[in-house]
Amino acid sequence: MKYIFTNIIGSFVFDEKLNIIDKIIFNPEDYNNKESFAEKLTKKHSPKPLPQEKLFEILVLFKDKNYFSTFYQNNLTLTKQDLRNSVQEDILIIQAIANINELDKAINLLTKRLREWYGLYFPELEQNVSHQEKIVELILSKDKTELSKEFNIKDTMGADLKPLHLQEIKLLAKNISQLMILRKEHEEYLEKVMREYCPNLLELAGTTIAARLIELGKSLKHLAMLPASTIQLFGAEKALFRHIKTGSRPPKYGVIINHPIIQKAKREDKGKASRTLADKLSLCARLDFFKGEFKAKEYLKQLEEKFIK
Amino acid sequence: MKYIFTNIIGSFVFDEKLNIIDKIIFNPEDYNNKESFAEKLTKKHSPKPLPQEKLFEILVLFKDKNYFSTFYQNNLTLTKQDLRNSVQEDILIIQAIANINELDKAINLLTKRLREWYGLYFPELEQNVSHQEKIVELILSKDKTELSKEFNIKDTMGADLKPLHLQEIKLLAKNISQLMILRKEHEEYLEKVMREYCPNLLELAGTTIAARLIELGKSLKHLAMLPASTIQLFGAEKALFRHIKTGSRPPKYGVIINHPIIQKAKREDKGKASRTLADKLSLCARLDFFKGEFKAKEYLKQLEEKFIK
Repeated sequence: MKYIFTNIIGSFVFDEKLNIIDKIIFNPEDYNNKESFAEKLTKKHSPKPLPQEKLFEILVLFKDKNYFSTFYQNNLTLTKQDLRNSVQEDILIIQAIANINELDKAINLLTKRLREWYGLYFPELEQNVSHQEKIVELILSKDKTELSKEFNIKDTMGADLKPLHLQEIKLLAKNISQLMILRKEHEEYLEKVMREYCPNLLELAGTTIAARLIELGKSLKHLAMLPASTIQLFGAEKALFRHIKTGSRPPKYGVIINHPIIQKAKREDKGKASRTLADKLSLCARLDFFKGEFKAKEYLKQLEEKFIK
Repeated sequence: MKYIFTNIIGSFVFDEKLNIIDKIIFNPEDYNNKESFAEKLTKKHSPKPLPQEKLFEILVLFKDKNYFSTFYQNNLTLTKQDLRNSVQEDILIIQAIANINELDKAINLLTKRLREWYGLYFPELEQNVSHQEKIVELILSKDKTELSKEFNIKDTMGADLKPLHLQEIKLLAKNISQLMILRKEHEEYLEKVMREYCPNLLELAGTTIAARLIELGKSLKHLAMLPASTIQLFGAEKALFRHIKTGSRPPKYGVIINHPIIQKAKREDKGKASRTLADKLSLCARLDFFKGEFKAKEYLKQLEEKFIK
C-alpha cells in the first residue's frame, strides 16, 4: 500500500509506514501544474490518495528543517505572483478615473488663479468669458487688442503689464491647457479600456459615469453583485443617511444624475427614470462580468423611448 | 474783481456777479495738469482765487445739464486711469507667490496619485524613493529593468502592465514634471521682480519668505509701516490667538520659521533670533519702500555672527 501527497514543496510517495520512497521537489512555478507532477508519480507507483486520518502524521514529517527554505521561497514567489495577477482592468480604471478627479481639482485651482492674475491686465475678459477652457484658450491665442475688438471693449480698466510679467501669466495658461489635454487623453484611454472590459456598462452609462460606478463599487465583480437600488444611490450616501437619520426626503439618484436619460426626463418622471436606469445598469454590469452578449444599445433605446419624448 | 475756479470739467473765470466770462473745457487727460491751464487764464485775467463763501453758489452753476456728460466722461476716464496705475509690483508679487502655493497643492495632489498608480506596476520604487521630484524623474527616465538594478530589487511584486496602460501613467508623470518646471520658473521670475522692487527684503529673507511677507502685509507700503513684532508673527495668527484666549505658550515665529538664521540657531536662542531677524526685516521693508540704500548684506552678516557659530 502506497500513498501520495502533494503540497507547495513537492509531490511525495509514502509507503505504509509513512517513509518517503519517492518525491519530486517543486520549483516555485511547478506548483501551478502540480497535477502533472503527481500524475507522473502515480504512474510509477500507483499509490492511493492519503486518507484523512494520516494527514497529521505526514504534516509532522515536514517540520524537518531541510524543507523550511524551499517552503519559504515557494510561498513567497507564489504570493508575489498572486499579487501581480491581482492587478486587473478594474484597478486601472479606478486609478484613471480618480486621476481625472484630481486633475479637475488642479485645473480649477489654477484657472481661478489665472483669472485673478490676468484680471489685473484685462479684467473685462474675465467678466465676459465664464467657460474655463475658453478663457485659457483666448489668453493663449490672442493679445489685448484682438480681444478688445472681439468683445467690443473700449478703454479697458486693466493695467499695462511689461512683457516680463505677462509672460509668467501666459506660462501658467500654457500649463493649464496641457493639463486639460491630459484630462481628455485620460478619458479616451478610459474609453478604450472599458470598450474591451465592460462594453455594456460603457455604452449605457458613458465613460465618466461607468468609471465612477466601478470606482464606487470597488470592482466590476462587486458591482455586478450589488442590487440595482444600491447603484441608483451610489454617490448620494450623505443624503441617504440624512434621510435615515432625520426623515428628510430620500435622494432619487447619486452619480447617475448626470446621465442624459435623467437629465432629459420630465420632472415628475425623474425618480422612475432613475430606478429604471439603475436596473439596466445593474444588468449591464452582470453581462460584462459574466462575458455575456452586447445588449446595452437595446436597453438605451428602450429607456429613450420611455422617458424622452 | 474776477475769480478763478477749476474742477474736473475745466477751468473757469467769473466776474463779480458770478457769470462765466472765460473758460477752458478739459479733455480727460487735461485734468492731470490742470495748473498749467489755470495759469493761462490767470495771465489773461489776473483773477483772485474763489473765496470759500462763494463756493456753494458756483457749484449750483454746474448743475447745468450741459456739463453732465463731460463730467461723467472725465470722471470715468480718470477713475480707469487710477485703477490702471494701482497695479504695482506688490500685486504682481502677491499673485505670483499665491500661484506658487496653488502649484504646490496641485503637484502634491497629482504626485500622490502617480505614486499609487505607478505602485501597481512597481511598488518597490515607491517605497524606496520618498522625494517627490526624484520619483517623477525616475519614472520618466528609466524603465523597470533599469530601476530594479539601481535599487537592487529582485522579483518585484508589481504587475506587468501593457504599454497602453503604462503610457497613461507616464503622461501623468510628464505633466507633473512640467508643473514643477513652471514652479521653478515662477520662483526665478519672483526673484527678478523683487531684485528691482525690494532688494533688501529679498536679500535678507530669500525669495519665498520675502514674497510671503509682502502677501501677508498686503503691500510693501503696508509692510513697511508695521511693527517688527507683527512681522515676527505673520503666519502664526492661529497660535497667537490661541495664546491670547487660552493662555497657552505664545508662538515664537510665523513664516520666518523657515529662514536659515532661525533654522540654524541653537534651541535656546531661537526666540531671540526670531525677534532680531524680524527687526531687521522690518528695517529692510522700510529701506525698500523709501528707496534707501542696500544694507541687507550687512544685516545678514550681523545675524549670522550672532546666532550661527
